[in-house]
Amino acid sequence: MARGAMENSSSASADKIEEEVAAVVEEAKEISDAVSAHISRNLSDEQPLRQRVLALDSKIHSLRSSLYSLLSHKHLNPNLADKLDEDLQRARCILVDGDASSLLPGHAQGRFLRMFLGPINVRASRKDVQLKVKEEYNSYRDRTALLFLLFPAMLLVLRSWIWDGCLPAFPVQVYQAWLLFLYTGLALRENILRVNGSDIRPWWIYHHYIAMLMALVSLTWEIKGQPDCAKTQRGVQLFLQWAMMQGVAMLLQNRYQRQRLYTRIALGKAKRMDVVWGETAGVDGQLWLLCPILFILQGFEAYVGLLLLQTAFVGVISEWQVIFCGILLVLMAIGNFTNTVQILMTKSRFKAKMRRSKSKQALN
Amino acid sequence: MARGAMENSSSASADKIEEEVAAVVEEAKEISDAVSAHISRNLSDEQPLRQRVLALDSKIHSLRSSLYSLLSHKHLNPNLADKLDEDLQRARCILVDGDASSLLPGHAQGRFLRMFLGPINVRASRKDVQLKVKEEYNSYRDRTALLFLLFPAMLLVLRSWIWDGCLPAFPVQVYQAWLLFLYTGLALRENILRVNGSDIRPWWIYHHYIAMLMALVSLTWEIKGQPDCAKTQRGVQLFLQWAMMQGVAMLLQNRYQRQRLYTRIALGKAKRMDVVWGETAGVDGQLWLLCPILFILQGFEAYVGLLLLQTAFVGVISEWQVIFCGILLVLMAIGNFTNTVQILMTKSRFKAKMRRSKSKQALN
Repeated sequence: MARGAMENSSSASADKIEEEVAAVVEEAKEISDAVSAHISRNLSDEQPLRQRVLALDSKIHSLRSSLYSLLSHKHLNPNLADKLDEDLQRARCILVDGDASSLLPGHAQGRFLRMFLGPINVRASRKDVQLKVKEEYNSYRDRTALLFLLFPAMLLVLRSWIWDGCLPAFPVQVYQAWLLFLYTGLALRENILRVNGSDIRPWWIYHHYIAMLMALVSLTWEIKGQPDCAKTQRGVQLFLQWAMMQGVAMLLQNRYQRQRLYTRIALGKAKRMDVVWGETAGVDGQLWLLCPILFILQGFEAYVGLLLLQTAFVGVISEWQVIFCGILLVLMAIGNFTNTVQILMTKSRFKAKMRRSKSKQALN
Repeated sequence: MARGAMENSSSASADKIEEEVAAVVEEAKEISDAVSAHISRNLSDEQPLRQRVLALDSKIHSLRSSLYSLLSHKHLNPNLADKLDEDLQRARCILVDGDASSLLPGHAQGRFLRMFLGPINVRASRKDVQLKVKEEYNSYRDRTALLFLLFPAMLLVLRSWIWDGCLPAFPVQVYQAWLLFLYTGLALRENILRVNGSDIRPWWIYHHYIAMLMALVSLTWEIKGQPDCAKTQRGVQLFLQWAMMQGVAMLLQNRYQRQRLYTRIALGKAKRMDVVWGETAGVDGQLWLLCPILFILQGFEAYVGLLLLQTAFVGVISEWQVIFCGILLVLMAIGNFTNTVQILMTKSRFKAKMRRSKSKQALN
């Protein structure tokens, strides 16, 4: 009797759970269909918006070029042209700084990101996330610049105070490993910013690829000890001094970039995703401080590179790493110099053009 | 007269462009608002769907546990229990393998990804993209395993055929740099898979962090040349042999994992995002081949580590890198062994339980 009751209750609970399981399977199918429908509805709602955004974007481009041609044929008052140009930039800013930017095509995801991450999409669909990424990149650069100044400074101070003029291998190698990690992180982040619509110049990303390579090679470079430190460690020492200068320049650049960005955002002229290492346009007062420092730094970079090559060819240190790092430093110096000059020239040409057309108009 | 006409036409084109610019600014504002509205509408449509998905997911979990408790109290026929359990797994599979998975919470994005990429979101919102990521990861591992076999094999063959038993530093360092890149890529990809809902065991990711560290340290490890290669390069040589075995094991594992995954998908038991390095469950026939190879590999890993420690303490090579790499290898061997055994134990315990409850039921 008791057994019968138990079997009854157990078959009742079996029936109940069977029903519940069947209901769950049904519900899973329904939800899955509902979500699929929701996603495809969302995509089809998005399509006309995307077309409008693209059409407007190309309209802004064509209006700007006809504005310039009217101005150069003197069919337009330069003050009016300035005002209209500003309006167009404002319109583009509304697109690019708002949610509409998610519908504008970004730069394609390059080989570098695919190599490390696979085919995952790193484009943020919402503007606030994109801005968070940019903000974080800026604060990452600030922290980095500080370490860039302090880490080699500490090594150099300890060298003369405690290590008797001879750098031990381990802390230098930790520093080199940190450089490798740092440049890899910067290159990845800058590629991500580019995918998210930043106009960062490709050179500054290539520059970080080269720096990654140099950090990697310098890790395999044996740091010779006691017998004659002053001679064999001359390269490392110069490199650390250059890194310290780099730290100062980075801090100045970061400050300058931020101010310029905020000014340009206020003027409605910049997309907030712009990152421009060493580029120079806008806050003219600080430019006169930044530019000479950048040129001195680039000169010093080339000098360190040439010194390394010299030590290799004179035969003090004959490892291939020394020659390789020397060549890379010279290459980076040339690239940095060329790019800085190009930016300055574009800027001054644009200014001269504006001035010329204005003064001609005034003569007429 | 002509001048007047020209001024008329130029003021006409000026008026026209002024109008067009004003229209463009207006359109930009409208589109921006429309896109914002579209995005927030999409989010609010998504909300109830998300809640339904979450509710169903927890319902499936609670039903499975009540199923087990009914089975253990013998209130349920084991055949029926099997069938219901399979139904529940199928329901979960419909959620997880369909578009609904984008609404299920994934693993949080860890420190490692933030360190390299910043706060960018790497979760794919659509299932087909998630699957593409997984597919690409699998083929990446296949290519990797092949190189893992060929690269050290080539070095060892060249060593005895051309290099007279003495490995030159450069190719070994290229190999070590490749290892560093490889492990960084694998660790990043596995973290991304985890964010996308894969159940990869944390150990296999930690394992790649340790391997990254070891590759980095081995780069700073000077490869000594001529006088007595057989002695000073013993560590490198053992390491290369171990790497070759690793390549064979990886190829076998990849084949096994894929087959197992396809079998389990066919049975509706696995999420396709599962990645399980060295895990062993399912295709029992191949397991008897894979398991001994894995254990031999882990033994050899520990042996190489201990040999490195021995050479360091006997005083043949006294660099800290040798001791450090030795300790890391032993640690990895212990971790790999523990994890493989844990997986095998969970598996056999589950099987034994199922067998026991079935046979008890049969006795009743």
